[in-house]
Amino acid sequence: MHLSCAMSLLAAARAAAERLGVTVSISIVDAAAWPMAFIRMDGCPLGAVEVSHKKARTAILFQMDSADFATIAHPDGGAYSLENTNGGLTSFGGGVVLKGVDGTIMGAIGVSGASTEDDIAIARAAATRLAA
Amino acid sequence: MHLSCAMSLLAAARAAAERLGVTVSISIVDAAAWPMAFIRMDGCPLGAVEVSHKKARTAILFQMDSADFATIAHPDGGAYSLENTNGGLTSFGGGVVLKGVDGTIMGAIGVSGASTEDDIAIARAAATRLAA
Amino acid sequence: MHLSCAMSLLAAARAAAERLGVTVSISIVDAAAWPMAFIRMDGCPLGAVEVSHKKARTAILFQMDSADFATIAHPDGGAYSLENTNGGLTSFGGGVVLKGVDGTIMGAIGVSGASTEDDIAIARAAATRLAA
Amino acid sequence: MHLSCAMSLLAAARAAAERLGVTVSISIVDAAAWPMAFIRMDGCPLGAVEVSHKKARTAILFQMDSADFATIAHPDGGAYSLENTNGGLTSFGGGVVLKGVDGTIMGAIGVSGASTEDDIAIARAAATRLAA
Repeated sequence: MHLSCAMSLLAAARAAAERLGVTVSISIVDAAAWPMAFIRMDGCPLGAVEVSHKKARTAILFQMDSADFATIAHPDGGAYSLENTNGGLTSFGGGVVLKGVDGTIMGAIGVSGASTEDDIAIARAAATRLAA
Repeated sequence: MHLSCAMSLLAAARAAAERLGVTVSISIVDAAAWPMAFIRMDGCPLGAVEVSHKKARTAILFQMDSADFATIAHPDGGAYSLENTNGGLTSFGGGVVLKGVDGTIMGAIGVSGASTEDDIAIARAAATRLAA
Repeated sequence: MHLSCAMSLLAAARAAAERLGVTVSISIVDAAAWPMAFIRMDGCPLGAVEVSHKKARTAILFQMDSADFATIAHPDGGAYSLENTNGGLTSFGGGVVLKGVDGTIMGAIGVSGASTEDDIAIARAAATRLAA
Repeated sequence: MHLSCAMSLLAAARAAAERLGVTVSISIVDAAAWPMAFIRMDGCPLGAVEVSHKKARTAILFQMDSADFATIAHPDGGAYSLENTNGGLTSFGGGVVLKGVDGTIMGAIGVSGASTEDDIAIARAAATRLAA
């Protein structure tokens, strides 16, 4: 994935947040989990900065959305404590795998700062654009 | 928030602790989570030093009292693992957001060393003074 | 500093890097050292991601360009070991304080990935735009 | 050392800083290196928060002022790398041991945010008051 692509995903996510009337932090990582681009919208709670990055990191490290990761990395899940590996991962939604039109995994996006439901919707709005 | 304000909040919290007959650590952070002022009362358990700071940090980073944070950042909450971000946060009461008369968020106070109920009461005694 | 401002500084720095024919990571932090925006240009060495952030952080935490910080935080400087505080700071150039037209400190920019000379030139190209 | 004593030392250091026209962070630790009281004066660079604490910690952990510690914990000193123990120590002045009238070590004060010369003068102004 090129920076130009990451930037257009950031812009798509930001536009989705503005449509919902919320302010979030948005992180894009590449297929090797390295940061590509990040923004924090004005007014977003500061704690969301790191959370947005960890959501993206969680999604790419296990190649699943962080909402799915949450069902296994939980005291009642099949892989409890997995969330405590890799520097700490995120067991709730808002991290979404980015796939190309042919299904190739290209990276992940993490959104944090609004409700988990809105964070997920914003991340998916960007991810959908990529797969279209 | 100026230091003079933080110092008077510290004094108000300390007075509230003395009225309750308990000894606590009290931390004040600004709106960007940076430490402004701190005291540890004589006899306060040493572990409370860091806890008081993390309570204040939790409150300001997510703009909610740490008692409310506890309901979401919990294995049964909607954002399990959130407590493990930002250097480790505090999922129980005693961290309270500090708001001005007009509702502007000015920082947060964290109190630790007594029962959680007393810690909360002490933090609120200071926060109420600011909003009055 | 608003996100729109940080984004235009990122664009200015990126354009300066393209004119020099180099690829860098660029981080913008606000006046309280919190990340606002970040990009990694295609081809930039991965180690530069964290370095760009630490350069910006160094500049804002001590209100001086990281090239000046380097003269004091050095075995032969007056504050040896200062570079090992605050999570690790950066004792070479490429972190530049961002000031408004009236001299108010608004944040900092950190650039890493090219030669230190080019990193500094790129950071200053953005900072100059803000002060103009 | 009681909190009331630490608070009067903080006030003495703050008054000394105001006389010099500088803004600093001031940390007091007890004889076991545990934080007792802290303030950050309005306008003090944010990086000084942690440095003030590490200066006080350095002084009490090795029972010598951090300016003296600097002569041994340095690449050219007799105990190079000592500065990298205990979570990171501070090899320059501004951390001063607090002794009672009879010479008993009671804790330490750390001052950071101005020139090293001023930081030292401020810390000594408080320490002198205690020994008087």
